[in-house]
Amino acid sequence: MPAAVAENPKIKATSAIPYTLYFGTFIHTPELTTSEICFNTLVGVDSRGEIDYIEKDFEPADGQSPVEYFKEQKKMSCQPQGGSEIDDENIVFVDYTSEPAKFFFPGFIDTHIHASQFPNIGIGLDTPLLDWLNTYTFPLELQFSVKDQSEQEAKFKFAKHVYSKVIQATLENGTTCASYFTAIDAGTTNLFADLLVEMGQRGYVGKVCMDHNEPCPAYSESLETCRKSMDSIISHISKVNPPREHLVEPIVTPRFAPVCSTPMLDYLGEISARDNLPIQTHISENKQEIELVAELFPDCESYAQVYNKHHLLTKRTILAHAIHLTQKECDLVAEKQCSISHCPTSNTFISSGEAPVYKYLYQDKINVSLGTDISGGFDVSILAMVKYAILVSHHLSMKPAQANGVDCKLSMTDGLYMATMGGARAVGLANLVGSFAVGKRFDAQLIDLDVQGARTDVFSWQVPKSGDLLPVKEKKMEDLLGKWIFSGDDRNCVSVWCNGRLVIDKRKPTKN
Amino acid sequence: MPAAVAENPKIKATSAIPYTLYFGTFIHTPELTTSEICFNTLVGVDSRGEIDYIEKDFEPADGQSPVEYFKEQKKMSCQPQGGSEIDDENIVFVDYTSEPAKFFFPGFIDTHIHASQFPNIGIGLDTPLLDWLNTYTFPLELQFSVKDQSEQEAKFKFAKHVYSKVIQATLENGTTCASYFTAIDAGTTNLFADLLVEMGQRGYVGKVCMDHNEPCPAYSESLETCRKSMDSIISHISKVNPPREHLVEPIVTPRFAPVCSTPMLDYLGEISARDNLPIQTHISENKQEIELVAELFPDCESYAQVYNKHHLLTKRTILAHAIHLTQKECDLVAEKQCSISHCPTSNTFISSGEAPVYKYLYQDKINVSLGTDISGGFDVSILAMVKYAILVSHHLSMKPAQANGVDCKLSMTDGLYMATMGGARAVGLANLVGSFAVGKRFDAQLIDLDVQGARTDVFSWQVPKSGDLLPVKEKKMEDLLGKWIFSGDDRNCVSVWCNGRLVIDKRKPTKN
Repeated sequence: MPAAVAENPKIKATSAIPYTLYFGTFIHTPELTTSEICFNTLVGVDSRGEIDYIEKDFEPADGQSPVEYFKEQKKMSCQPQGGSEIDDENIVFVDYTSEPAKFFFPGFIDTHIHASQFPNIGIGLDTPLLDWLNTYTFPLELQFSVKDQSEQEAKFKFAKHVYSKVIQATLENGTTCASYFTAIDAGTTNLFADLLVEMGQRGYVGKVCMDHNEPCPAYSESLETCRKSMDSIISHISKVNPPREHLVEPIVTPRFAPVCSTPMLDYLGEISARDNLPIQTHISENKQEIELVAELFPDCESYAQVYNKHHLLTKRTILAHAIHLTQKECDLVAEKQCSISHCPTSNTFISSGEAPVYKYLYQDKINVSLGTDISGGFDVSILAMVKYAILVSHHLSMKPAQANGVDCKLSMTDGLYMATMGGARAVGLANLVGSFAVGKRFDAQLIDLDVQGARTDVFSWQVPKSGDLLPVKEKKMEDLLGKWIFSGDDRNCVSVWCNGRLVIDKRKPTKN
Repeated sequence: MPAAVAENPKIKATSAIPYTLYFGTFIHTPELTTSEICFNTLVGVDSRGEIDYIEKDFEPADGQSPVEYFKEQKKMSCQPQGGSEIDDENIVFVDYTSEPAKFFFPGFIDTHIHASQFPNIGIGLDTPLLDWLNTYTFPLELQFSVKDQSEQEAKFKFAKHVYSKVIQATLENGTTCASYFTAIDAGTTNLFADLLVEMGQRGYVGKVCMDHNEPCPAYSESLETCRKSMDSIISHISKVNPPREHLVEPIVTPRFAPVCSTPMLDYLGEISARDNLPIQTHISENKQEIELVAELFPDCESYAQVYNKHHLLTKRTILAHAIHLTQKECDLVAEKQCSISHCPTSNTFISSGEAPVYKYLYQDKINVSLGTDISGGFDVSILAMVKYAILVSHHLSMKPAQANGVDCKLSMTDGLYMATMGGARAVGLANLVGSFAVGKRFDAQLIDLDVQGARTDVFSWQVPKSGDLLPVKEKKMEDLLGKWIFSGDDRNCVSVWCNGRLVIDKRKPTKN
């Protein structure tokens, strides 16, 4: 593994950083149903980007500064493990405590997004899934395929243009980690992995695997080509991923059962087991699709069973959509500890259905995360997915069949949990990201609800004040979270850190 | 009527303007189901802000400039009526034909918005209507009430702060006309009318009338106070509205039946008839509310009948929400030619229900418009309402009861129609605004899908090119409309004209 990778200044998420002590309001959802609002909190991030110190509700004694206090505390505690060093003179101190409409939040995790479909956002309203794929999606994805050397330069240029935009757009919306579908092609998929490393976003890179695409045979591959492509990608990513970091990883991606032969599904199950690779695919998005799967795999009693039979349901599997699962399928998904990626905008845009997420979370005990599903979904923002997940759950609750006392409404905490910790569990990085805890990486965003040019309007009486009692401060902050989720957007996300490194910085003066 | 009003340079929407010839792509929905995309179109707006010339698909002959052609045409045509004069030398020519991601669209019309509730946007998720009113809404609206002279200055300052923000925010989102609920107080309502005139937005100003507010008696008034307040407002607005303009008008606003006594409803029906005033109220938003109305008005067979009995259902009545109307009520509303204001975000946010808008439009033949319903709704943008109206209709279509062939999905054209012409019909200004036509006022917005800092990403192959055949250009523009509706926001609305006057100008260089 070339040392040059780690030292390359072009690699944002491993560039050299000083020890930094952040001071302000930190909000996160470390557990389902638990939303923690921590005022006056000190968080120390070491030179590797790891959180090695957290002090909540810091109250300075006798005029002691937070930095002095911190240094004293650090001397008392054990020396940090793993090479984190604090140079006494060079601690960077970042203080937002005087700006009560600002808070830190864990970076969002998008567990289902098709990078190659980014240009099609908003296009194709209400076209049913299978038609939508043939009309809009396959023709666009085909453009990422390099058929022969002569077109490589043009195709790479095209891919770089689109892929840079999607990474930039998701980062600007606070997404520090995403599980991507690219396209069928290995070369442009490798280019995508390079861009992730360069731009500083954690990402799973999934070349779509499909050898049985009847409606669009031109957009298909042989099993042999697929093997070669997967080998190329696994090898390439092992070279570009910075040593000892979980920045960029390959993910095994059977597109969805209808476009994969049995031998291909067998092969993909095998390499996942062989190389301990995560898996992502689609499941039960649309009723027509479910019928097609039943027809194509008559030996399997359900859609989930098709994947299970080929060893594709593991605790590192992300199942996108999962709208119409039977109870037996839910039990199987729960037993195998797979995660679901709920894609509310996509499901409504193309009228696929309303996934019973509350039931999955609280009754079936399945881990659920959120996916933008660009471009079935029309919004790159996971903050928007929190909003839409809640709204979809309200629609589900308004169905007559749901009026009999079964709760299905998601809370803001449910939504924020799925956007962060649910996502971290889905991508298998729950011990590394998704919340603020000592030992985790600082993948975070700074939210400013009062920044100039934002859509959020915050009035003076709505912001927590130092004289407010704690319950008052907390209630105000909960209301502000409502403002953020329901009227905020990328403009409120003023800074983004991945692996402790600042990868997006658009701070401006506050309005007031 | 003081001449000073018309000449006051502070009054944006009547300030002096030169004759202006706009050249570019104009898109509008003059009829339900009809969306017109007009490329290379010349639109002349006279010094009163009226459109007096439209030439579609202009193709210059022999290098003749659009302005030369226009002057020639105008000489051939009759002299314009009503004092519109064109000074040959001083025509302003505005040309956007070289920027294919820019287009003109009629200004949006928001037919249901509570100006006083603006600070509460995003707050109070999933609190049922009647609780939501008592917990969040009435306490805030009470702050706009001037109880005695001593507090007038502070209350006016507060009201001006909030009301300026809501007018600015809606204008920046392309809303050129809105039907507002203010609060119960006359003084701050008059102040709101002044601000509309000053800031250049067309608006209906509705002081809420309510003399029977059992859950919050402090936020109530006697019928006598209501009469005095209405007299004050009607008189004040007749003074501040510029002569011969439909800029600001009072609207009779019984808040909703449960908080109005029978004598108050009688009185409000009478003044509407006496002064030919429009009416706005709420109807059938929530099942609990409908039961309450049945209890309070046992002599009326339905909620709609309560209003009808008091002469409050006229062709100038806007009924907000109208989610759970019976067929008999639909027939009554259609017969009386009332309009519905559909408020999709509000209805989902507080789980009120899913209004069957497609049925209203196409089966019951009721005019339907869109309302943001701030702050039951969480978004000030009517563009967002187009998106949410479509999404809500998809949810309705996914209900099992709807799967039996009854169509309920709204198209983009349906949404855009409701946002403009449907709104214009609702506010009784269909012959003045809502589409581009000779004789109508130029209430318009310039949309730029490629403006710097916007969320919309437009790729080079997606924009219409001069060499494209017309069907290709139109298909591209339809896809761009999808991008606008589903991923656009206030950043794409770069200029707004009300009454021909530029009231918002945030043009920046395009991205590419």
